[in-house]
Amino acid sequence: MDLQTVAELAQPAARKIVLLVLDGLGGLPREPGGPTELEAARTPCLDDLARTGSLGLHHPVAPGITPGSGPGHLSLFGYDPLRYVTGRGVLEALGIRFDLRETDIAARGNLCWVDQRGRLTDRRAGRITSSAAVPLTERLNQIDLPGVTCLVRHVSEHRFVLVIRSEGSGAGRLETDVRGTDPGHEGVPPRDPEPKTEGARRAAELLGTWVNRAAQSLAGEAGANMVLLRGISGRPRWPLFPDVFGMKARAVAAYPMYRGVARLVGMEAVEAPDRADALLHGLKDALPKNDFVFLHYKAPDKAGEDGDFDRKVATIEAIDPVAGDIAGVLGDGVLLVTGDHSTPAVMRGHSWHPVPFLLHGGGLPGERRAGGFGEAACARGIHGTVRGWDLMRLAAARAGGLKKYGA
Amino acid sequence: MDLQTVAELAQPAARKIVLLVLDGLGGLPREPGGPTELEAARTPCLDDLARTGSLGLHHPVAPGITPGSGPGHLSLFGYDPLRYVTGRGVLEALGIRFDLRETDIAARGNLCWVDQRGRLTDRRAGRITSSAAVPLTERLNQIDLPGVTCLVRHVSEHRFVLVIRSEGSGAGRLETDVRGTDPGHEGVPPRDPEPKTEGARRAAELLGTWVNRAAQSLAGEAGANMVLLRGISGRPRWPLFPDVFGMKARAVAAYPMYRGVARLVGMEAVEAPDRADALLHGLKDALPKNDFVFLHYKAPDKAGEDGDFDRKVATIEAIDPVAGDIAGVLGDGVLLVTGDHSTPAVMRGHSWHPVPFLLHGGGLPGERRAGGFGEAACARGIHGTVRGWDLMRLAAARAGGLKKYGA
Repeated sequence: MDLQTVAELAQPAARKIVLLVLDGLGGLPREPGGPTELEAARTPCLDDLARTGSLGLHHPVAPGITPGSGPGHLSLFGYDPLRYVTGRGVLEALGIRFDLRETDIAARGNLCWVDQRGRLTDRRAGRITSSAAVPLTERLNQIDLPGVTCLVRHVSEHRFVLVIRSEGSGAGRLETDVRGTDPGHEGVPPRDPEPKTEGARRAAELLGTWVNRAAQSLAGEAGANMVLLRGISGRPRWPLFPDVFGMKARAVAAYPMYRGVARLVGMEAVEAPDRADALLHGLKDALPKNDFVFLHYKAPDKAGEDGDFDRKVATIEAIDPVAGDIAGVLGDGVLLVTGDHSTPAVMRGHSWHPVPFLLHGGGLPGERRAGGFGEAACARGIHGTVRGWDLMRLAAARAGGLKKYGA
Repeated sequence: MDLQTVAELAQPAARKIVLLVLDGLGGLPREPGGPTELEAARTPCLDDLARTGSLGLHHPVAPGITPGSGPGHLSLFGYDPLRYVTGRGVLEALGIRFDLRETDIAARGNLCWVDQRGRLTDRRAGRITSSAAVPLTERLNQIDLPGVTCLVRHVSEHRFVLVIRSEGSGAGRLETDVRGTDPGHEGVPPRDPEPKTEGARRAAELLGTWVNRAAQSLAGEAGANMVLLRGISGRPRWPLFPDVFGMKARAVAAYPMYRGVARLVGMEAVEAPDRADALLHGLKDALPKNDFVFLHYKAPDKAGEDGDFDRKVATIEAIDPVAGDIAGVLGDGVLLVTGDHSTPAVMRGHSWHPVPFLLHGGGLPGERRAGGFGEAACARGIHGTVRGWDLMRLAAARAGGLKKYGA
C-alpha cells in the first residue's frame, strides 16, 4: 500500500505510539536445538507484553535480503526501502553515521591523482591506505566557503564524504541535481560539477569552488593531489512521516545515523546515551509533545556483531524492565518492540532472518497463547510474517489512527 | 499476480468451488487468555474440515487496514482492492446496500440551497436533518424519465444516492464519464453535468434532465430547493470473474450489497434469506449450473457489530452443520470458508486483524495437525499469512483450474 493511500486513511489517533527498536534483535541458536539470544534472555516484562499483546515476524526488505541499518529503519517507519531509495551521497553519509540535516548536500568523494596537466592518472590514488588518507581528508575538512559549512569525513582508503551544509544560512534548501565529476576513466581531467537543472546552479557553483579549493589544498601531496565527487544528492523529497500518519514524531537515539534516518522522514531527533534508563527518560520528555516516539537501543546489534551471544542476551535482559516501564508510562497507548534487522551472534553481522515483533496496547486483549517473546513464538503469532513497512500501519490501526478502507 | 496472468493460466477446473463467507468471521478474545468467537464456538464440522483440509490467515487489504465490506469481498473474489477501486457513486450505492446492476449509473447527491437567481447559498442545505431530508428524497424518487428508471435513496442528512437504471431499456450500457455538478463553493450556480467523452453525452443528458426535474420538484421547499451530483460512475470496466477464472459463477446472498459486489465482477446473483439452511438450499440450486458458488452469511458480522460475543458464537455454531452438509454435497469439490474481514465483538466493528481461512477438498490430504478451525490454528497453518486475493488462486489450484506457470 502506497503512502498516499495511507495518508488518505489517516485520522487523529486516540492513542500514542512508541516504537522501541532493539537494534539487531533477531538471532539464531548458538547450538542446534538451543534458544536464540532473545529466547535465552530472561525477559519477564517482554514476555508479559507478548501474552497481553500480539506477535509476528517481519522482513525489513524482502526474504533473503540482509538490510543495512538505513533501509531497516526506513522500513520500520513505514517506507518500503526498495521504493524509497536515497542518493548514494546521502547513503554514504548515513553509512558513516553522519548526522545529516534537512538542507545538506552530500557527495561521495574519492582521493585521486592527476598529472601536471590535470589529467587523471589514478582515480583511487593508488588505493591509498586509510592512515595516509586521514590527514588529507582532515585538511579538506578545513576548507571554508562563504555562507555554508563544509564537512569532510573519511570513510575508508580513498573514500570520503563531503557535506555542504546551508542550514541557518537563510538560503533554504538547495536543489542538488548536480552531475558528479568522475569521468569514469583515466587520461582526462575531472569533469566540472554541472547543474542538471537551472535550480541546481548554486549547488554546482558551491561544489565547483570546493573542488578548486581541495585541489589547492592537496597540491604537491604525494598521497593524493585531487578529488572526485560522485552521487551528489540532497535529502530525498519523500512524503514525510508526520504528514503520512498525521503524527508529530520524535526520535531518541544515541547514534547520529539513526537520528539522521529519522530526520530523513521528517521526525525531530534528539540524542540520548545508549543506556536502557536513558531511553525511558527520553520517552518521558518526548511523550507530552509527540504522538509517536522512536526509541533506538543499539547494544544488542553491537554484541551480535562482536559474535558475543552472552553479551547480546545481557543487553536484551537490560532493556527488559525498561520495556515494562515504557508500557506502564504509555497506559493504553501502543508499544511496538522489534529490531531493524537480525544480527545473530553466530554470524557476527546483519542477516536476512525475519525479525520478531511485539505489538501491545490499544485496549485490545492479547493472544495469551504466545509463550513469551521470541522467534518461535512470533512465527506462530497472529500477525504472521509481514513486511517491515506493514508494522507502522498495524501500530497506527491499534492506536485508532486509520479509517476503514472502502464502504 | 495480476488478473491477466491468472486468466492466461486458467484451465477448465475438474472440480467446483464453493466460497462460504462468514461475514466478519475473525475475532478477538473477550478476556485476556480466552478464546476468540470462532474458537469458543462448538464447531465439530468445521473442525473436521480443518483437520482434513488446510489452514491459513489472510489480510483482505493490507496489514493494519480495516476493510469495508466492498473491498473485503472484492479481495475474496481475487481482486486486489487497492488496485480495483470503484467510483464514489458506486461505492456510496454499495455502502447503503443498494443492489447495483450492470448498466446502472450511480451518483452521490447533496440536497442544497440556491437563491432566486439559482446561485448556491449552501451546498449542504444547512446540513439538513435526516428526518427533514427523507420526505424530499422520497419525492425525488418519484421522478420518471422516459426509457430509464430513476431511483433515489437517502443516505444521511443532506446526502443521497441517485441511480439511473437503463437495464431492459435496450439502450445497453451507457458511458458514464460525466462531470459532477458541484462547483465546490457557494455564490455560483450548480454546473451542468457535462460529458467528458462523446460517448457519455446520453448519460449527461439524462442526468441534466433529472436535475431539472429535481429542481422543479423541490421548488419552494424550505428544507432544500436544489441538488448537486458528484462522483458519477458506472460499473467499473474490470476483468470479469468468469473470464479470469474461466468459471460460471453465482452469488447467493440475503443483502443487496453483497449481490451488488458479486455483479460488479460479473457473477449472477440471487437472493436468499440469511439463514444457514437457506444457503444450503441456494447451493443445491446453483451447483448444477455453475462452477463457482459464493454463499454469503451475514449473521456473525451483525453480532460482532453489536458487541455480542455470545451471539456471534451462536451464529457460527448455527452455520457449522451446514458447512458439513456443503462439503458433503460438494464431494471432492473445493470448499473455502473464511470472512471478508474481522469483526471482533470486543471492538463492535470491522477491524484490521487477519482473517482465518480453511480450504478443503480437491482430493488432497489434510494437514491433520491443525487442531480445529480458529485463529491460533490458522496462524500455524500451512498457507501462512497471505493476502485475500491470493485465496481464489489457492482455491482454483485445488480445483485443478490453474495450469503450471512456465515450462
